[in-house]
Amino acid sequence: MSNYPMVPGHEVVGEVVEVGSAVNKFTAGDIVGVGYVVGCCKNCSPCNTDREQYCAKKIWTFNDVYNDGKPTQGGFSGSMVVDQKFVVKIPDGLAPEQAAPLLCAGVTVYSPLNHFGLKESGLRGAILGLGGVGHMGVKMAKAMGHHVTVISSTDKKKTEALDHLGADEYLVSSDTEAMQKAAESLDYIIDTVPAFHPLEPYLSLLRIDGKLILTGVINTPLQFLTPTVMLGRKSIAGTLVGSMKEQEEMLAFCKEKNLTSMVEVVKMDYINTAMERLEKNDVRYRFVVDVAGSKIDDQ
Amino acid sequence: MSNYPMVPGHEVVGEVVEVGSAVNKFTAGDIVGVGYVVGCCKNCSPCNTDREQYCAKKIWTFNDVYNDGKPTQGGFSGSMVVDQKFVVKIPDGLAPEQAAPLLCAGVTVYSPLNHFGLKESGLRGAILGLGGVGHMGVKMAKAMGHHVTVISSTDKKKTEALDHLGADEYLVSSDTEAMQKAAESLDYIIDTVPAFHPLEPYLSLLRIDGKLILTGVINTPLQFLTPTVMLGRKSIAGTLVGSMKEQEEMLAFCKEKNLTSMVEVVKMDYINTAMERLEKNDVRYRFVVDVAGSKIDDQ
Repeated sequence: MSNYPMVPGHEVVGEVVEVGSAVNKFTAGDIVGVGYVVGCCKNCSPCNTDREQYCAKKIWTFNDVYNDGKPTQGGFSGSMVVDQKFVVKIPDGLAPEQAAPLLCAGVTVYSPLNHFGLKESGLRGAILGLGGVGHMGVKMAKAMGHHVTVISSTDKKKTEALDHLGADEYLVSSDTEAMQKAAESLDYIIDTVPAFHPLEPYLSLLRIDGKLILTGVINTPLQFLTPTVMLGRKSIAGTLVGSMKEQEEMLAFCKEKNLTSMVEVVKMDYINTAMERLEKNDVRYRFVVDVAGSKIDDQ
Repeated sequence: MSNYPMVPGHEVVGEVVEVGSAVNKFTAGDIVGVGYVVGCCKNCSPCNTDREQYCAKKIWTFNDVYNDGKPTQGGFSGSMVVDQKFVVKIPDGLAPEQAAPLLCAGVTVYSPLNHFGLKESGLRGAILGLGGVGHMGVKMAKAMGHHVTVISSTDKKKTEALDHLGADEYLVSSDTEAMQKAAESLDYIIDTVPAFHPLEPYLSLLRIDGKLILTGVINTPLQFLTPTVMLGRKSIAGTLVGSMKEQEEMLAFCKEKNLTSMVEVVKMDYINTAMERLEKNDVRYRFVVDVAGSKIDDQ
């Protein structure tokens, strides 16, 4: 693989330019999307039950090795060849640049809400961490009719959460009085924080049968005391993106609810600046790179 | 409360000697049971949805304070007065001494299997730790038609688990080769170990959507890495005994399946010896104290 550069991009929207003879779902000219996964074995229990994102042989959209032995290259390529199973139609009326972040960030929050039976209106939920995934979480949960609290370590994003994203409440995790007042009030928390944090304060916010759902890869062990979950039959679960079935459902849901992501569209020559700004969390909430509109050196 | 001695006993079977005028479920002469809970508020969401064991105002069977301000005293008392809501009829044909451990140990494993949708036959489950709760877990899961593995830190209980309790497999947690071979093979693990232990080795035994259910109070934090749960949408949950509805269902299930607990019946004057043996885990699997058959000094 050393001869190939790593080409990222796992929330990809583009136009179909050509289809193979066996392709029956798409035709040239369709606006389509690709998420974090482009392959699976198609033969195991997860693959046969619409849980192919958990197939032991799943292939990531970039920096992985495809069936042909070549590295996968993501959406910042000039073009991609993708198995139709992992391609989803972008519904008419969803702008491509706003649809893109739905394909990973969007489905990352839609999938657990769907799988764990948390789509019904009237639930009380929280989104822990307000980044790319978190902002989609607020929008998605609000569109489902939930009472949504944003939990953050500081009050910096309060106006953003309440006034721009439409959250109902904002909770600063270091404010012990506010945290105590919110004890046992939530049906679920989607935890999007990709760094070590204690779980106890958040478990204590959950009602009986409440669920803390982890979506951030953290390589430092997280901790909890068993009575914290036992005394309320609480669950700590983790999920990974979503299935293609959920991608389709999620896009249809976003179209129906007129729900979009909040993005900043940049060209390829802005990538280095974008990376520097990402390091400082200086983006609302995703950079979308306009690859087709950029001058690309495809050597 | 200092004027009252602490009287334990939370798996109680006895005969009804007298009923109050408002009691409609029982009459004198009935053989009945009482578990770990004898009171709740009867008015909150958990109480109204057959989850009264999680009511914030639940009252433990012993060493707690009852509605009248007096301490609750458990099954080692000469007699008990209990609200009929927390009394369950022991089905005809279930011996009282064998029914007793069902009322806590039994329902502690029945409740999570019931609540988390794990009663269907054909599942593959494991019981971690083979004590009073664990031995009921093996019997209960086998009676549900599951393939049952007992996981223990040593091979000491292998014959017991396989030959006497009917488990299908026995896994020693320190045998890394056997643990690796069993990777991703289980739908659930009922973790009955009431002392610190790492969770990673057990999480890795779970299939996609598998559940690790904690039933042991442990006051040292347990740890896990988020990818371990995220990569298979696994859950770590905790449960506490069971509801009265589940007590009734569980007893009916045990009666139907001819399922009993394994006990050693002793008299009151054996208590000190029994405590010493308990310290050494020297019991198969519960001591049942024959209070009625003991000479009791009720001063």
